[in-house]
Parts: sequence; structure tokens; C-alpha cells
Amino acid sequence: MHEIDLSKYRIRTDLIVEHLSNIKDYKRYEEVYDDIKIETIELDKDRAKIIDKKEGIYKTIYFDDVTDENNFAKLLDVTIKAIKDLLNSINIKDSDSVLIIGLGNRKATPDALGPLTIDSIKITRQIVELGLPLDKKYRVISSIIPGVMGTTGIETKEIIEGVIDKVKPSFLIVIDALAASSLERINKTIQLTDTGIHPGSGLLNNRFEISKETLGLPVIAIGIPTVVDATTIVSNTINYIFRHFSYEKENIDNKKLKLVPTINRNYKDHDKTLNKEERKEVMGLIGDLSDDEIKALITEVLTPLGYNLLVTPKEIDFVITKLSELLSKALNKSLELN
Amino acid sequence: MHEIDLSKYRIRTDLIVEHLSNIKDYKRYEEVYDDIKIETIELDKDRAKIIDKKEGIYKTIYFDDVTDENNFAKLLDVTIKAIKDLLNSINIKDSDSVLIIGLGNRKATPDALGPLTIDSIKITRQIVELGLPLDKKYRVISSIIPGVMGTTGIETKEIIEGVIDKVKPSFLIVIDALAASSLERINKTIQLTDTGIHPGSGLLNNRFEISKETLGLPVIAIGIPTVVDATTIVSNTINYIFRHFSYEKENIDNKKLKLVPTINRNYKDHDKTLNKEERKEVMGLIGDLSDDEIKALITEVLTPLGYNLLVTPKEIDFVITKLSELLSKALNKSLELN
Amino acid sequence: MHEIDLSKYRIRTDLIVEHLSNIKDYKRYEEVYDDIKIETIELDKDRAKIIDKKEGIYKTIYFDDVTDENNFAKLLDVTIKAIKDLLNSINIKDSDSVLIIGLGNRKATPDALGPLTIDSIKITRQIVELGLPLDKKYRVISSIIPGVMGTTGIETKEIIEGVIDKVKPSFLIVIDALAASSLERINKTIQLTDTGIHPGSGLLNNRFEISKETLGLPVIAIGIPTVVDATTIVSNTINYIFRHFSYEKENIDNKKLKLVPTINRNYKDHDKTLNKEERKEVMGLIGDLSDDEIKALITEVLTPLGYNLLVTPKEIDFVITKLSELLSKALNKSLELN
Amino acid sequence: MHEIDLSKYRIRTDLIVEHLSNIKDYKRYEEVYDDIKIETIELDKDRAKIIDKKEGIYKTIYFDDVTDENNFAKLLDVTIKAIKDLLNSINIKDSDSVLIIGLGNRKATPDALGPLTIDSIKITRQIVELGLPLDKKYRVISSIIPGVMGTTGIETKEIIEGVIDKVKPSFLIVIDALAASSLERINKTIQLTDTGIHPGSGLLNNRFEISKETLGLPVIAIGIPTVVDATTIVSNTINYIFRHFSYEKENIDNKKLKLVPTINRNYKDHDKTLNKEERKEVMGLIGDLSDDEIKALITEVLTPLGYNLLVTPKEIDFVITKLSELLSKALNKSLELN
Repeated sequence: MHEIDLSKYRIRTDLIVEHLSNIKDYKRYEEVYDDIKIETIELDKDRAKIIDKKEGIYKTIYFDDVTDENNFAKLLDVTIKAIKDLLNSINIKDSDSVLIIGLGNRKATPDALGPLTIDSIKITRQIVELGLPLDKKYRVISSIIPGVMGTTGIETKEIIEGVIDKVKPSFLIVIDALAASSLERINKTIQLTDTGIHPGSGLLNNRFEISKETLGLPVIAIGIPTVVDATTIVSNTINYIFRHFSYEKENIDNKKLKLVPTINRNYKDHDKTLNKEERKEVMGLIGDLSDDEIKALITEVLTPLGYNLLVTPKEIDFVITKLSELLSKALNKSLELN
Repeated sequence: MHEIDLSKYRIRTDLIVEHLSNIKDYKRYEEVYDDIKIETIELDKDRAKIIDKKEGIYKTIYFDDVTDENNFAKLLDVTIKAIKDLLNSINIKDSDSVLIIGLGNRKATPDALGPLTIDSIKITRQIVELGLPLDKKYRVISSIIPGVMGTTGIETKEIIEGVIDKVKPSFLIVIDALAASSLERINKTIQLTDTGIHPGSGLLNNRFEISKETLGLPVIAIGIPTVVDATTIVSNTINYIFRHFSYEKENIDNKKLKLVPTINRNYKDHDKTLNKEERKEVMGLIGDLSDDEIKALITEVLTPLGYNLLVTPKEIDFVITKLSELLSKALNKSLELN
Repeated sequence: MHEIDLSKYRIRTDLIVEHLSNIKDYKRYEEVYDDIKIETIELDKDRAKIIDKKEGIYKTIYFDDVTDENNFAKLLDVTIKAIKDLLNSINIKDSDSVLIIGLGNRKATPDALGPLTIDSIKITRQIVELGLPLDKKYRVISSIIPGVMGTTGIETKEIIEGVIDKVKPSFLIVIDALAASSLERINKTIQLTDTGIHPGSGLLNNRFEISKETLGLPVIAIGIPTVVDATTIVSNTINYIFRHFSYEKENIDNKKLKLVPTINRNYKDHDKTLNKEERKEVMGLIGDLSDDEIKALITEVLTPLGYNLLVTPKEIDFVITKLSELLSKALNKSLELN
Repeated sequence: MHEIDLSKYRIRTDLIVEHLSNIKDYKRYEEVYDDIKIETIELDKDRAKIIDKKEGIYKTIYFDDVTDENNFAKLLDVTIKAIKDLLNSINIKDSDSVLIIGLGNRKATPDALGPLTIDSIKITRQIVELGLPLDKKYRVISSIIPGVMGTTGIETKEIIEGVIDKVKPSFLIVIDALAASSLERINKTIQLTDTGIHPGSGLLNNRFEISKETLGLPVIAIGIPTVVDATTIVSNTINYIFRHFSYEKENIDNKKLKLVPTINRNYKDHDKTLNKEERKEVMGLIGDLSDDEIKALITEVLTPLGYNLLVTPKEIDFVITKLSELLSKALNKSLELN
């Protein structure tokens, strides 16, 4: 059956912040709103090349539980600000029309972020097309849900190109669900960038890229990681094991801690980990490997068994509903004119 | 709110068989399979013009309850035959690739026939695109769900044109929910035609037409009426009242009938109605009007109140599920090569 | 297939306001909030008997388009007030626990009002059950979606009785979609009553009744008409035809009106209709019948053909989403303690 | 928000086959149908006690991809056989009526197995209740979807008890989604048992148990594992690492293998693993721990961070659709009388 193999045909982008350890001296600033943070990275051509990413602006919003009502309201304000700032950074004008594109497969919950967001976007282009007057408050907005290659048989980029040819928008906004390469980012991070959507590397690269370079108009991409693979879960956990041992070791004589059941000892803010020798003691040969080598080994172990699954938290239905509500509300508000 | 006004932006086609009373000597043949019937009409240019329709082949399948399992199986066979016959009539070859388009709004149940059908279409084009060998059994098939202008801001035809430019299919199949102009056809009729989709008349006509004339490649349209307006319900009922009185009059001395409660007297097969004088007696001024004049009057009465609603049977969810399952299975089978 | 026959097994209540023409001197008062109105009727035993209804309080909220954002906000406030007033009228105390029941079939859109409302009710009883402290702001609330007899094989009332035996709530709130007996009430009326849910008449009456009499605890029923049958559409229209002719006659010499296209002449506020003679002239024998006789005739005409469908407006998906959001928000707020 | 904490309130059962390593000499037999296997375990009181399980019959069906059409058809036949055999084993008679219960939360995809299965169960009890004759082919069948405590505020068992009191079925069939304690079982195993549903251990045990002991009538439980926790993924992977190293070591001089890319070397059928010394070399301190100790450590590491997520494969929507279709078809067929 074709349904089960969709992942093969899907573009997968990931978060810039997971690649920054390899470069230095890039522009970076933070805005903090209580427990929500926007981190903005400006990547120039040279540094982008080193980590196989695109030159441009990357804004990453970090937040906690989106299903909490208070959190949601605050996060909405922050997201509106981030979108507006990005629109300003790339000089989008009030008269610029936008085509908003919801990537992903509506029928696979963790992949439905784009289509569900589009469902609640306020579109206005039809008013102009029907020859009616458009309220000054509104920009010309259209939207499309192109589907995924596994269910249309057509490359997403081809559909988008075809529609752009007819609609001729000034710029694009593309919404997509991403794969996280860290357990702690899943459903808790929004990435906005003016660099578009493009796979990190590999053969299919240029063919699928949705960006200013390939389409000839500005492309803002908004992504939220909603899935993670088993390799990531395991390699993350190995690192947590090292941090856990480091924390336990440091607190070995802390009498107060001994009264706390082990399972409740929160080492979340413990930012030290084991040194090379200690790692080897705890994890033998594995402890001697670098992070990338550990990932490669786990991939090697899980893939032949067919167990390197892309997984998503059990509660994904509620979370996706809230995340798409957040994005559509944020877009509706930040695209209004004042 | 934009959601509620969608109907304004939707193309509405209706059934050819509801317009034939005004023309003569057209080609017509019937195939009967138990209680399922295919009626084929071939309309030439001149006759088509008289009733403001397009020249071409119209196949209408009449059936009863699609939610009955046995009926479904039989209807599936008949629908496959009708599609294959139509493909042959217009000389579709095995090497011809097809783009199947599901019109309508997925979020409005009676309008979701097209999108739901597409959800279960077996597509194959991605295999060819990925450079893999395609089983000889399969034609090159792609599909798209363009959405409706009320939610995309883009005319459906523009999206289709844009996608055709990229995909370059040999022919199109377009699925859409229709408005019935008779209570007895709703959810009980499939119309297949090689004339495409186009509104019956009016200003917006050419702008929206999806046909060989406007797109340059064969377009097969498959439609099922799933909604009806209040005017139709009322004007139909007035005609049933006339037939009912005619039946009662004819059977006035039938003693056996008197034992049957009025509500169970089935005049379904009574094909006579009242004459002009009798109609006037039963319905006064209204009885004196022609069918078209009655429709116009009812529209005049209901429209200013906002009560000329498009309605759908309460059970539409079950029916649409079955009808879309029927169409996707019929298409998957009839597009296979042998 | 069983799915299609569900309506047979469903309790159908209707609006009290459609039965008041036959009684006099009942208590009635109105509250008007812009274009939203609450009409409260207090029916005593004797008057209730005349119209085959139950003694008690009936609050009917009249409103326009619930899908309009501003309307929604206002209507929400009005609905909260109406629920609170009704709770006060029957002396519900802060310490009283409530079981909220969503009647109807989740899989049939116009019948899904109850289940969808329950989906967003804030329940609290599990907190108490798990032995945790309940915030003073909250009442003890539980909820259940019993399904319909056509899909469970169990009478709804039996399920409710079984659950009440275990949960032992102080009172019930029951949400249900109703059948309207007027085109103008559909999706535009909320009825609240302390008389519970019970069919208007007939054999099955006591067996299905969900009320204080049959269950032994207060039952508040909240209903919104979402379907209407073809007989209602036709008999309503015949009355509109009479009003239309009356309006046209009265304005026969109004020169200004002649410039307005007939279809735009809004006689909505014209509250006169034709007299007996005029009715007969316009509608012959039919015009000579009383409203009830006309309804009976139409039922007689449509039923044998199978065309006396329960129908719902095409846009029902959007409307039900909004109506259930309204009810759940109104219930969550009005059940809070202060 | 309450939605996100549902897992707390859910009964979680797991697969018997994951607990057998600790007992000996139990009755066990296998039936093999191509690549589908039924494993039947009969557990007596003593052996059941050792592994904290219930005495009774456990049938486990092992299969591969349920979304493959051919597999589905075969698996359906096998499942029908297994259900019929279990009904026979506990002496269910043709005259016995059944109440089928779909546990779980319809709004959380991996937890919706029970409700979705119930949606397509053919129920017949309403025919008898309405006083109509029931076809000899059919047993008296009713069904209910009780919801979960997180959304009803009521313990599932209480709802079931209440309904049983009214409906008085001869036996129960309970459908539920389970948590797997192995990556390889997820969505690939059906467990049938006459021991009902009950958490493996702990305080809440008796309170929630749905079984012959607690309800007084036979309870057949049908479960499919659809979620897995992060601890399981990691501890499974550590074992795969050991097997992988064992395989690599054994094949160190296998020249043919060297031509195969590491990621394609399928050690699936390699059933050896490392010895204690080797484990320690590869994994240091961790390698020295028993399986249970490793699990405990990982739980200790992940829980304080909030990362011990219950996860489900990204494609869960398609899989759940197919699995629930399988169960409802299998139940409909195996409950028919002949």
C-alpha cells in the first residue's frame, strides 16, 4: 500500500540550532518573555556553507506546553512579534500579496500541521478577484494545500511553481512539520526563516528546494518539529545518562538529595557531563565514541531491523490542533495592515 | 465569517437529464442491470445549444441506496463499465497519463465528494518521477485537490491550469458534487460526461469552465448530486401533489385501496398527473402557472427571506463516505490496463 | 445497512415556541440584547397538557448567524446568562454535582451537537475520585456520550440510568440536536428547559423520556434545531407565498417598489397574510385547508415516495462546530462557582 | 489543560508474551499460517501468580504489515479463527448475548482503536428491543464506547457496571490499545484473552480491573499494542547493539559480507548475543547490568526530564484505520451464528 511509505517522499528539514556547534562568531541575539524565548541567528554565506545550511535569518521560538491556555496566549503574542520582525527584516511591504502554503499530509496527524494551519487562514484574494473592494486592513492573501508526492504523484515544488505562475504572489509563506534531532525540541520549538525549505543534503536537494533561489520570490518558512526518530531518542538518552552520572557523582555526599527518590532528582539544570575517561567507564566502547559516531552506530543497528521509526508523542492530536491554531492566529494577525 | 459564504464561489453544474424535455431526436440508449440503469445521451451541437449545454456524451447512472452492501457491489461493476465505455468513446489510449482532480470543499460534507474520492485513488506518477519501473498493469496517474475559491482565494481553474503546465497529463478526470434539480435524484445518480465542468449559464461562465475547449485536453467529469435547494423541494412537491390527486381520483372507487392508510398508498408508479383545469381547481392561481413560472415564484418568495437554502439529507456523512468509496474503487479499476 | 436508518431510533423533541398558538395567559417575558432575544415561558400543568408538553420553564434564545465572530461573543454572554438563570430558578446549589450528557450520533454531522459539545467540557469529577483537592472555583462535573440506539443497540435512557446509579450526580444537563418545525429557526435558536427530553406524543413516550419524573433528579435540556423535514419546508413556503401575495397586493401602487427587482423586495417584516377568500383564489383547494391540514396533506404526498427527508443546510459542518463551541464555553463558564 | 494528562488515567495492560521468561512448563501451542502465527498460552493459577498475571487463556497473533492488502485478508481469516476458538474454549453458546466495549480515547489516534472498532460493529439488540424478529444468523449484540476518565470524570469500570446492570449481557468483549514493551511488537500483535483487562500491578489494581472476577460475567479482552515508551526504545536498542556486535564478531572474516554496506547487513535472524564479559567491554558499567536494571536506570534518567514519552509511529493514522477495520470485520464474522 502506498500510504505507509509516504515518509520516503517527504522533504525533511531540521532545526538550525542543532547545527551551530560547528561554527563561530555568527550573529545571534535573544529576546526573553518570561519562559518563552526568541533566538535570532543571522548566518552569512561562509558560515552557512560550513554547516551545509543556507545564508539568511533564522528565528527560533522556544516554549513549553502549548496546550496550556495561559502559555498559549503569551506564545501567540511572541509568535506574532517574530513573524512581523521577519517580514520587516526582508522588507515586505503592505502592498505585497502573499501565497501561504501548507505542506504535509493532512491524513497523518504529526504531518498535518501545514494543512490544518491553512484551514483557518483568512484569505482575501477572492474579494479582489471578484472585483469587490478590499478593506484597507487586509493584505491580498491566498493559500494552497498541495498535498504530498506520495498521494498526488506530483512533486510539491512543481505544484507550487504551477500555482505561482497563475497567482503571481509577491512572496510565499510555507508551513511544515519538521523532524527534531532532539527529544527536548519536539512540539516545543517554532523555527522561522527567510531561507525557505530544503533538505540538508543529498541527491534530491535542488530538485525539491522551495526558496528564493529556486522560485524567484521571497520564501518565509515556518516549521515545528513534531516527529523524532528512534536513533535520536537513543543517542539523546545516552547523553542524558552521562549527565545523570555526572550529577549523581557531584552530589554523592549531598545528604538532602538522598531523601529524594532517584526518579524525582531533577538534574535538568545540571549542565555538566562526564569527561572522556568517565564516559568510557560508564559505557565502554560506546562511551569512547563521538556523538556522531554513536548516532551512526545506532542507525546501523536499528535500520536493518526496520526499527528506526519516525515517532511522535501519543498526545499528538491535541498538540497539533493547538499548534495549528497558534500558527493560523499568528499569521492572520501579523499579516494585517495597520 | 468567510466559511459560510462558500457557496457563492462554487461552480454548480447540474444533471443533463433534467433539461431534455426541450429537445427532440437526440441519440439515447439505455442499459439495464437489475434495478441499476445507465442512460447514454449523445448531444450534437445544435441540440446542445437549445438547452444551453455542451455537445458531447452524457452517461447517467440511476441507482438506489448506495449504503446497502449488495447494491454497492453491483453499482461498482456498472460504474466501472460506464467509465471504461466513456474512455473508449473518446479514444483514451493505454499510454495516456491522467490527472484526477477532486473539486469541492473537504470541510463541508456534501461538498467533499471530490476530495474524499481522491484520498483513495491509487496514484503511480511518483514511481516514474523517482526513476523506478512502473508495473505494466498501471497507467501514469496523478491527482490533486485544489480546494475552493472561498478557502484558497484562487480560482480553481487557475490552480488546475498551473498544475497541468507542470504535470502535462494526456487527459483529466474531474470529480465534483452537484446540485440536483429534483428530490428523487439526490445521492442516487452519477453523471459522467466528456464535456467537462461548466456552469449552465451566466456571466461567470467561460471564466470557470473546465473543459477541452478551455484547457486543451480531454476532460471527463464525474458528478453526483448531493444537495438540493428549497425551491426545488417545494416545486417538486407541488408536482407530487398533482400526481397524488390524479391517483386518488382514478382510484376513487377502488374499494381495496380504501383499506390502505393514505400515507401508505404508493403512487410512485402512477405516471399520470392532473390536466390544466384540475390543477387550477386544486391550486388556484399557482395551478395555472407553468413549472418554470412556479419555480420562479418560489425563488422570489424564499430568496428575500434568506430561506432558499441548499440542503442535504441528514445522513449525508454515511452516504458521502460510500459514494466516494464507490468512485475511487471504480476509477482505480477502470484505469488499470489489461 | 444499519447506519441509514438511525433516525428511526432517535428521540426527536421540538421547540415549545412552535406550539404556543393554542394556549393563552401563560407567563412569558422577554430580554432583548441588541439582535439577540431570550424568551422565557413558564408553563403550568393545565396549559402544558393542552399542547401535550411538560409543565416547567422554557427559555428560547433567538439569534442570527453564529459563525460571525462578533455575534458569537455576544451570544456567548447571553447563553451564559440564560443557563445561570435557569440553574437559579430550579435552586441548583454550588455543592450540587452535575453529569452532562451529549445525546446524538457523532458520525452524522447535524446530529453531532451533543457529542461535540461534550468534547470541550471541563470535567472535574476525576480529581475528586483520585483523592486530589478540587479548586474552590469548580463544581464536581462529569460527562458522558451515550451514543444512539441505532449504533449501540441500547436505549439511551438505559445507559443514562446505569451511569446515574454509579455516579450519583445531583442533576443532569442533556444536550441534543432537535428537529425544527420552521425554516427560520434552524441553527438560529437555543432552547433551555427544566422539563427534560421527551417526544411530543405517541407510543414510545414514557419509555424514552429523560426527565425528573422518569429519573428522579433535575434534568436541564439544551437543544438546538439543526434539521428540518421536507414537509416543513413546503408548508412554510406556502405560508410565505400567502404573505408574499399580501405584501405585493398592499404595495401594488407603490411606485418606488417597482424599481426594486422582485427578488430583492424584502417582505420579511410584513406581518400580514391573505384572508380566507384570497388564499382560496391563490391556492385553490389547498388554500382552503388549515395549516395542520396542509401539513398532513404534504406528509401524505411525500412519505410514500420516500421523499419526506430530514435535511440540513449544506454548511452544517461549520455551523455545528461553532454551535458546539458556543455551548461548551457557555456551560464551562456558567457551571463555575464564584 | 486536561487533555494532555490523559495517560495518567488510563488503564495500561501489556502483552503476556513479554513476561514468560520467568516461568516454566506452561501449556503453549502454535498455529502457523504462512507468516502469521497464533501462539496460545494456558496459564494456571500458580504460574500466573509468579508473573503477576491472571490465570486463563492468552492467544497472541503475530503478523507483519496490516496495511498490505494481501496480508490483511489472510490476517482477517486468522483473527476470526482465533476469536472463534476462544469463544469455544470458554463455552460461549449461540444464545449468549454480548456487549462489546471500545475502551480508549477517540480523540487520541493511537488510543482510538477501541472506539473506531465499535463504529463498524453490526449491532442487533435494538431489533429485539423494538420487538422485531431477529434473523437466525445473528446473536444479540450491543456495544458501547465509555470514553476515558480524563474526559468523562468517571472510572471506565463504573460506566461499564452501570450499563451491564441494565443490558444484562451474557458476556463482554473489550477492545483496547495497549502499550508494547518491545519495539518489534508495536502494531504487529493482537492479544486475545479470557482474563479481561487489568493493570499489571500496583495500588489501583482492583479498582479498575474489568474481568469475570470483578464483574461476574465472562470477559474477553482484545488488545493491540500501539504505543511504546522511550525507555523501551532505548533498552531494546541496547540489546540490539549487543546482538549486532555478536553478529559482526561472528562474521568478522566473512568476505562476502564485507561487500554489503553496514546499514544493509541484516542480523534480524541472528539469535545470539554477547556474553557478560563482551557486554561489559562494549557498554562498560551499563553492560554489567541486567535488563531490568538497565530499564530502571533509563527510566530514572528520562523521567525527571519529562522525556519518558509514550510515542507512536508517525503513520499511526493509517495503521489504526486498518487495525480497527480488521477487528470489527473479525468480530462481525466470528459472532455470527451458523
